[in-house]
Amino acid sequence: MSFAATLTRDAGLVQARLDAALSGMADEPVIHAMRYAVQGGKRLRGFMVLESARMLGIAESASVSAATAVEALHAYSLIHDDMPCMDNDDLRRGLPTVHKKWDEATAVLAGDALQTLAFELLTPQDGSVSPAVQAACVGLLARASGYQGMAGGQAIDLASVGHRLTEAQLRQMHRLKTGALLLCSVQMGAACGAAVSATAHAALQQFGEAMGLAFQVVDDILDVTADSATLGKTAGKDAAADKPTYVALMGLAPAQRLADELAAQAAQALQDTGLPTERLAALRALCDMVVQRTH
Amino acid sequence: MSFAATLTRDAGLVQARLDAALSGMADEPVIHAMRYAVQGGKRLRGFMVLESARMLGIAESASVSAATAVEALHAYSLIHDDMPCMDNDDLRRGLPTVHKKWDEATAVLAGDALQTLAFELLTPQDGSVSPAVQAACVGLLARASGYQGMAGGQAIDLASVGHRLTEAQLRQMHRLKTGALLLCSVQMGAACGAAVSATAHAALQQFGEAMGLAFQVVDDILDVTADSATLGKTAGKDAAADKPTYVALMGLAPAQRLADELAAQAAQALQDTGLPTERLAALRALCDMVVQRTH
Repeated sequence: MSFAATLTRDAGLVQARLDAALSGMADEPVIHAMRYAVQGGKRLRGFMVLESARMLGIAESASVSAATAVEALHAYSLIHDDMPCMDNDDLRRGLPTVHKKWDEATAVLAGDALQTLAFELLTPQDGSVSPAVQAACVGLLARASGYQGMAGGQAIDLASVGHRLTEAQLRQMHRLKTGALLLCSVQMGAACGAAVSATAHAALQQFGEAMGLAFQVVDDILDVTADSATLGKTAGKDAAADKPTYVALMGLAPAQRLADELAAQAAQALQDTGLPTERLAALRALCDMVVQRTH
Repeated sequence: MSFAATLTRDAGLVQARLDAALSGMADEPVIHAMRYAVQGGKRLRGFMVLESARMLGIAESASVSAATAVEALHAYSLIHDDMPCMDNDDLRRGLPTVHKKWDEATAVLAGDALQTLAFELLTPQDGSVSPAVQAACVGLLARASGYQGMAGGQAIDLASVGHRLTEAQLRQMHRLKTGALLLCSVQMGAACGAAVSATAHAALQQFGEAMGLAFQVVDDILDVTADSATLGKTAGKDAAADKPTYVALMGLAPAQRLADELAAQAAQALQDTGLPTERLAALRALCDMVVQRTH
């Protein structure tokens, strides 16, 4: 199966779960906003959960709850990050942001409820996921997305506007803001099955960390090189807001080289898992995709 | 031990856990705001977790994580509810609200991170709580606080300003907005130990539901009868915002009678658990306290 076909299949699995979770609800603006916010997007985090699990021989039926949960959590973070008091963005995935289409109260509540939904999805009540896997995934997702992870990174981001950060500081900010949830996606995929070897676990950790940083570097590059229509969100926002980015710090070409290096590190880490090469194909293709996006 | 002493002891247990969870963090506004938001309050939800567990013979060491988690979750909901786009309140527990003391971005992020912290607290990594109990408590807390619980109730509340609700509609709104988390506190307390009998489980459910509604009726009464200094939050807000309340719907004296009835129902439900009377003392005293607050 091609990378594009795998990505589409996985996105479909996640979307079906999200649609089911949000069906049969009251006919209220907050519910409409939640449904709206979980449409579209590449579902890269869900893909990373499903394909990390699949690579380790774990059935899709055991990992799809975690894949859906991480996408619900990501959707919550986008709603809140777009709000006027945060990044103040009007456009997301080519459509008006939630606070523009509805209002700020709806954006706060829809985001809040999508965060909670992520933890509901991790604890299905139908016996499909063992309590041990449920507890492990909740522990991973909560730690990756709270004040020691994503939310903490967003706090540093807000505080750093107009300041010149070192590369080490920028890397730390992105490690939390974007990297933690991407790494967590790989970790949750692995946590959905039996324990893996220490070697494979360490290699997966390296893969997740390298990919997490690579995605952020690419986002910084695309903010400069792509137009809003292609991005589906407002281009040039970071520069306009004087936000610290890899492009601002090191220039465009070196940032592109860094993204390439990180993708290569991630690909090497996959090899280091010691798994058969044919098992690595989907995540290996993800490394290539990251590089292609920058050029 | 007197009711007041029990309440103080339980609040101290929860506060120590919250302080520990938020210690050693970066010196940033969001962290300061999180620490600020988890100070004070009566800790009734934590009390209900700890005392429901204790009533069933479950050790405090097994239930204190859940008690702390529900208070972190409650603190998040207060920060977001107070925001300008929501209830727009300047005062909480006698102090400036988070968005007044810092700003809206800090309020959004501190609330978000406190919600996540609740799920971190439910999944301690030190072996103190079994994976089965972790999974059960996460399932209960997520379902009580999301769009089918607290967040959904807040959505109805916002949408209902200026509308005249029937008592049934008002009861449904409060069942979600306030009642779900209070009921969940009782349910989590019970989930921290071995399964209880069907009779005791049903009685606990009735206790939690009656207490949940009683608290909201009392809140509506106090909004009218108490002054801001006593409440620690702005009195008369509901009436000023033309919000539907029990007092607005049925008048002050009938609302007080309803609170009394609900407290009596809750006390009866405790008897119906079939547990020895001496075990019921702490939660029985809570029923009395609810009535005393209204008169």
